[in-house]
Amino acid sequence: MTEDAHSRPSGIAPQPLYDLTIPTPTHAERARTLVAQISTGTLCTLAHEPDGYPYGSFVTVAFDRGNPIFLISRLAEHTKNLERDPRASLLVAEDRSADPLANGRVTLLGPCMRVEGDGGSVRAAFLAVHPNATYYSDFRDFGFWKLQVHSIRYIGGYGRMSWIDQTDWQSAEPDPLGPSASGMIAHMNADHADTLALYCRAFSKATDVTSARMTGIDRYGFEMSATTAEGPRPIRVAFAKSVSTPEEARAALVGMMKDAKSKLS
Amino acid sequence: MTEDAHSRPSGIAPQPLYDLTIPTPTHAERARTLVAQISTGTLCTLAHEPDGYPYGSFVTVAFDRGNPIFLISRLAEHTKNLERDPRASLLVAEDRSADPLANGRVTLLGPCMRVEGDGGSVRAAFLAVHPNATYYSDFRDFGFWKLQVHSIRYIGGYGRMSWIDQTDWQSAEPDPLGPSASGMIAHMNADHADTLALYCRAFSKATDVTSARMTGIDRYGFEMSATTAEGPRPIRVAFAKSVSTPEEARAALVGMMKDAKSKLS
Repeated sequence: MTEDAHSRPSGIAPQPLYDLTIPTPTHAERARTLVAQISTGTLCTLAHEPDGYPYGSFVTVAFDRGNPIFLISRLAEHTKNLERDPRASLLVAEDRSADPLANGRVTLLGPCMRVEGDGGSVRAAFLAVHPNATYYSDFRDFGFWKLQVHSIRYIGGYGRMSWIDQTDWQSAEPDPLGPSASGMIAHMNADHADTLALYCRAFSKATDVTSARMTGIDRYGFEMSATTAEGPRPIRVAFAKSVSTPEEARAALVGMMKDAKSKLS
Repeated sequence: MTEDAHSRPSGIAPQPLYDLTIPTPTHAERARTLVAQISTGTLCTLAHEPDGYPYGSFVTVAFDRGNPIFLISRLAEHTKNLERDPRASLLVAEDRSADPLANGRVTLLGPCMRVEGDGGSVRAAFLAVHPNATYYSDFRDFGFWKLQVHSIRYIGGYGRMSWIDQTDWQSAEPDPLGPSASGMIAHMNADHADTLALYCRAFSKATDVTSARMTGIDRYGFEMSATTAEGPRPIRVAFAKSVSTPEEARAALVGMMKDAKSKLS
């Protein structure tokens, strides 16, 4: 799936410190989770003047079963562009990391068409995410539009990228921990740093790690950056079975702490 | 310059509370100031597959006399796209306001071409803004690219938008208060709220305002949102002469406080 083949002047990648075959979200799941957390993006359309140029504009967005939906004015450039040519894409990008290129982002490509009538379920889905848009949703120049996703490009940060199959995109679900993940990560790093190092020693090949930070958590497990003699290294640990709620994740983490202590004692 | 002509069901705009002809940054100046503060954006290129679709991707960016410059890998989709067709645009957007559509954004359109050789002054300008990129700037698949700006679309928030003339864009300077503005605004709102209301009473038609927040400051003056019986209303006040540094702005603000007190006493 990955395509990290940059032409480095020299050097080879080190051996991973964990089993790469343990349960891990697919790129489709990661990308659906990413877009479910974000409500703005860049809409790319084809300009009339200068002719045929790709035109990027800022938009608010919501999602209807994985397809981006917009409430836009026919006075706006992007709407004029879509009325002439429906070909479009939407870029949605995280901004959680201080290193901008470490953040995840997704480009969704497909035709973007006006939703007829008053918008129906699309209206309801959009206004649920953007309640302040209610006041202009009935301006006569505004309408609801939907981008029907045909192609999906996912970049999850350095060295994690792929084109996602359209069927996989439509069937994948956002991770149930998505909305809670950043809070759980902050809590683990602030209050349970020792436990994170313990997980590394018990459940990975990094058996002498004394310091680690959690960097991600999902229904299948969690990811850490372990401090090693060779610098920071990624480690992933899977839950015994996938979790469905933050409470189940918390229980799994507590259970794994006990397992780790008994394994290392 | 503005094009705020949304088809509202009813209602007319209220009379402005200040003289709209006082010195104010041009849209070219506002847009150059905006991009000078931001080092990431969305690059829009033309995809090969699906053919001719506009493709949005996240990029880090710096500017060379108003023209965006990039350090990108030929392994990346956007680079492959540019090698086939140089037509491109870059969207740069602020994220300072909680209301996403109140933020400023600029779309810069023009051909994007590889900079020959080692990048020269473009390399220096890019690495000055992105020093961490030094480590991959010599990977053989990476190169410097420059988008030669031909067309500029500026949206400064609600009802402030225009196409900017290319000559105006090239000749405009970023505001000298740009990097300090958010700190100055926070300070005035935290520590000098009474003074802001005083400015409104002395220097605008809002002669009975008791509460105002600063929302912007630039070399020519500053902007406030005044609390009135009809809700929040914008007020702009100009400096007696334009300032060149944060220290000059501070001195002007102190002088105007004294003038306001004597005018109202």
